[in-house]
Amino acid sequence: MATIKQEPDAAPCGGIELHTAHTLNGIKVAILLEELKEGYGKEYTVFVMNGSERETMKHWWIRIAPGGKVPCVIDRDQGRYAITEGHAILNYLTRHYDPALQYSFADPLEACAAEQWISWLHAGLGPAQAEAASFYRFAPDRQLGPTYYFYYKLKRYYNELNNHLAQRGYLAGLEGGRYSIADIAVWPFVDAIGVAGMELESYPNVHRWWRSVRERPAVGRGMRVPGGRPFVYSYEVGQRWAVDDPGGMRNAERPFRDALEAARQRFGD
Amino acid sequence: MATIKQEPDAAPCGGIELHTAHTLNGIKVAILLEELKEGYGKEYTVFVMNGSERETMKHWWIRIAPGGKVPCVIDRDQGRYAITEGHAILNYLTRHYDPALQYSFADPLEACAAEQWISWLHAGLGPAQAEAASFYRFAPDRQLGPTYYFYYKLKRYYNELNNHLAQRGYLAGLEGGRYSIADIAVWPFVDAIGVAGMELESYPNVHRWWRSVRERPAVGRGMRVPGGRPFVYSYEVGQRWAVDDPGGMRNAERPFRDALEAARQRFGD
Repeated sequence: MATIKQEPDAAPCGGIELHTAHTLNGIKVAILLEELKEGYGKEYTVFVMNGSERETMKHWWIRIAPGGKVPCVIDRDQGRYAITEGHAILNYLTRHYDPALQYSFADPLEACAAEQWISWLHAGLGPAQAEAASFYRFAPDRQLGPTYYFYYKLKRYYNELNNHLAQRGYLAGLEGGRYSIADIAVWPFVDAIGVAGMELESYPNVHRWWRSVRERPAVGRGMRVPGGRPFVYSYEVGQRWAVDDPGGMRNAERPFRDALEAARQRFGD
Repeated sequence: MATIKQEPDAAPCGGIELHTAHTLNGIKVAILLEELKEGYGKEYTVFVMNGSERETMKHWWIRIAPGGKVPCVIDRDQGRYAITEGHAILNYLTRHYDPALQYSFADPLEACAAEQWISWLHAGLGPAQAEAASFYRFAPDRQLGPTYYFYYKLKRYYNELNNHLAQRGYLAGLEGGRYSIADIAVWPFVDAIGVAGMELESYPNVHRWWRSVRERPAVGRGMRVPGGRPFVYSYEVGQRWAVDDPGGMRNAERPFRDALEAARQRFGD
């Protein structure tokens, strides 16, 4: 793993570069890259784009990645082609580097079902969870209206996911489905459900699916890229905190939980 | 065009069915279907899912379309396969029904660039504009914090699009690009920029691109599906209203504009 301080031209590596930060969108790409490493021996190099490095956006990064965003995959074996946006990255990587279709589908209808769920994450659960977290946790003051609005939206998405998984093991694929980029796309967000003040245990089918995906070694490694630790709002971090320092966790969460409870009281649940 | 009152099994048609309402996501699919009709003579049948029909979701619709959403394309020539989510629908339709690649790309890097922009719309500009409109216009009261937050987010996406189009005619494709599903995905949202209180004229490259896409006959027809009229917040409706009834428009918009102006004053622009 390398921290990049200059334009990647000068970086001493070839093949696939993952330019990332420890975000949910970054983790999903890292999980797929870990799977491809395990499944095919395909190597990749991580470059960390943290706060200070993002300053460089003004200079060269913005030319490569639209909007200066991370994650961005650069493929040096394809003329230094740069790709942003999770859906496009997952499709690109499997099209080029998953010839045995271990994580993707040959059948066009199964492939389309995977795309529907990736797209559902992109346009639906992903933004809803980001905004729910913004108003539940990160806004400077507690605003009941938007807190409730996004909580309610997010809850609908989790119910939808829970219903879909009632008779299935994985999001896409015939019959009970099989593990694929659809699961990889959605899993990191579900893993971080606590960021928005919600609980995995409320959605038993989602919880079961979460566990079976979590058991994959590549998922365990990918969720720690970069930095070697799980995402700060991941399920495991939350569980460990609740055991190690229950009072500390309750105190930290109390203002958020109280505001959400007040919002539910006011607007109905 | 038909209004469906029962499960589509009973509907007297074959081929492609578009189940839709007059939403921006619906319009993008209708535009592509109009292009496929013009380019290949591929016919499709529209089913309108309006308020009262959505009641039926509780019964059969929810089994077909995850989350009971529209638009949904059902392909009766593929075993009645149902597809939701714009990105998945655009990919599905071009893969199956655009053999001459009039609206999509053979080259995997060009195809990936198109996917990046469709994905950018899905995860970025689309949700940002929806939420900006919610707080600018549709919320029961004017809340400066979230109004500003989403206005600012949306402005960043429009700046990004404007920069991307500075040296290009279309979103994806080599050199200056060529018209494709990437433009089809993004165009209806840009056309309805006014729903969030913003103006196309502030983004000259976007405005130029908007005009050149608008000139396509299939776009003119698709934006009127279903119902035969443009979307109520489309650019043309706004322009016409400003000419026909400027006082009425000013009065209707005033509380929203005043709140946005107050938010800009408070939080900076």
